Amino acid sequence: MKAVVFDAYGTLYDVQSVAAITEQAFPGYGELITQIWRIKQLEYSWLRSLMRRYEDFSLITRQSLAYTLRVLGLQHEARVFDQIMDKYLHLDLYPDAVAALAAMRGRKLAILSNGSTDMLNALVRNSGLDRVLDATISIDSAKTFKPSPDAYTLVEAKLGVLPSEVLFVSSNPWDACGAKAFGFHVAWIERVTPEAMALACVRSDLMAPLTLYKALRTQMDELGFEPDHRIRTLAELPRLAGIR
Amino acid sequence: MKAVVFDAYGTLYDVQSVAAITEQAFPGYGELITQIWRIKQLEYSWLRSLMRRYEDFSLITRQSLAYTLRVLGLQHEARVFDQIMDKYLHLDLYPDAVAALAAMRGRKLAILSNGSTDMLNALVRNSGLDRVLDATISIDSAKTFKPSPDAYTLVEAKLGVLPSEVLFVSSNPWDACGAKAFGFHVAWIERVTPEAMALACVRSDLMAPLTLYKALRTQMDELGFEPDHRIRTLAELPRLAGIR
Repeated sequence: MKAVVFDAYGTLYDVQSVAAITEQAFPGYGELITQIWRIKQLEYSWLRSLMRRYEDFSLITRQSLAYTLRVLGLQHEARVFDQIMDKYLHLDLYPDAVAALAAMRGRKLAILSNGSTDMLNALVRNSGLDRVLDATISIDSAKTFKPSPDAYTLVEAKLGVLPSEVLFVSSNPWDACGAKAFGFHVAWIERVTPEAMALACVRSDLMAPLTLYKALRTQMDELGFEPDHRIRTLAELPRLAGIR
Repeated sequence: MKAVVFDAYGTLYDVQSVAAITEQAFPGYGELITQIWRIKQLEYSWLRSLMRRYEDFSLITRQSLAYTLRVLGLQHEARVFDQIMDKYLHLDLYPDAVAALAAMRGRKLAILSNGSTDMLNALVRNSGLDRVLDATISIDSAKTFKPSPDAYTLVEAKLGVLPSEVLFVSSNPWDACGAKAFGFHVAWIERVTPEAMALACVRSDLMAPLTLYKALRTQMDELGFEPDHRIRTLAELPRLAGIR
C-alpha cells in the first residue's frame, strides 16, 4: 500500500458531536435533529448526484438542516442556525484518529471526502490534522458525490497512486462498498458491532432515534460488495498497512 | 397535457400496507421493519445507480429486507421471508386511485416506476389497473433508477409525448423534485400535511418509527425544485388535467 486514504465524516470526525449544540439550541430535540439532519444530508448528496444537479456539500448541509428544523416545526433565528452549522467546521476527532495517523507517517496519508474544499480545509486546520496529512481531497472538482466512481478516481489524479495501491478507510458502509466496487483495498471500521446493535434492540430501546439511526447507518449494507478488512478501531490500521 | 404518468410505490400503491404481514411474522416489530425496509430500499436504488452497479428492484427489495431483519437480529425461515416479499406484488391501492384514473380516461395514462418489469406487471394485474392504464413503464431498460433523467426520459420513448406534455404525479418528494428538474409538469400528493406532521411531533410521539419515517419521507425536500401543484388527494387530478 502506497497510500492510506480516509473518509472524513464519521470516520476521522464524529458527526454525532453536533448533538450537544443542537440539544442546547432545541432542548429535548438534540438527538433527533442530529439523526434526521445526517440522514437527509447523505440523501441529498446522492439525489443531487443522480439528478445531475450538483451543489457543494456546504449548501447540502444547510438545506438538510433547514429541512430538519422545518419538519419538526422548530422556529429559530438565523444566528442559531449559523451556530449549529459552524460546528461542522469544528467536529470532534475520534479519539483513535491522531495516534493512528502518526503511526503511519511515511505512507501517503490523505482524506477523500464529500465535504466542500472550504469545509474540509477549515475542519482539518481546526483539528490540527493539516500537520499529518499529505492531501485533503474534496470531491468538489468531480461535481458528483461518493459513491460515484468519478469521486474515488480523484485519488489517483491527486496522489499519483493506482487504486490497487490504496487502502481506503471508512466507517460508512455505503462508502466502503463504493470504494470496493471502484477497486480500492478497503478497511471498514465497524463502530457499532452487531453485538452492540443487538443489545440496542432490546425492545424498550427500539424507538429511540439513535437506535434507528444505528440500524440505518452503522451496519454493513447489502450492496453486493464486502470490505477486505473489518476493524473496530483506527489503531488496527498500522498493522494492516504493513507497519509494525 | 397529453399524458398523466404516475409513480407506483407510495403514490397509487400503499407501501405501508406491508405492515400487517411484517407484524404478523415478527410481533412488535411490524412498523419498525416496514420503515427501515423502505428507507433502505430507496437508498440501495440510489446508491447502486451512483456506483453504476445496477440490479433490478426485485433484488434490491430482497436485499433491503435481508438487511432489515439481520440488523434487528430477527431469525426467520425462508418461507416467512418469501411471504413478506410476496406482499409487494399485492400492495393495497390507495382508496382514491381507481376513481381518479377512471375519471381521466381519454388521456394517456401510465405508470413510471423503479419497480422491475415483473414486479410491476404482477402488481398492476393483481390490482386490476391493467384495465385502465395504457402503459406500465419500468426503469429497468434504462438500468438506472429515478431520479436520474435517464429514467424519466423513458416516458417520451414509450408514450411518444414530450416532457412538456406530461403531468407527472408522485407522493415521493425526491421523485417530484427529480421529475421537475427533468422537465415534467409535476403534481405532488402531500399525503401527510405539515399540520399533521406538527401534530405527530408532539413530544410523546417523536420517538415512534412511523413519526420518524414521516419526518424523513413525507415532507417536501430541499433540493432546489418545487412541484407545480400540491394536491392532497388523487381526486384533484382530473381538474388539474383540464377535465371537469
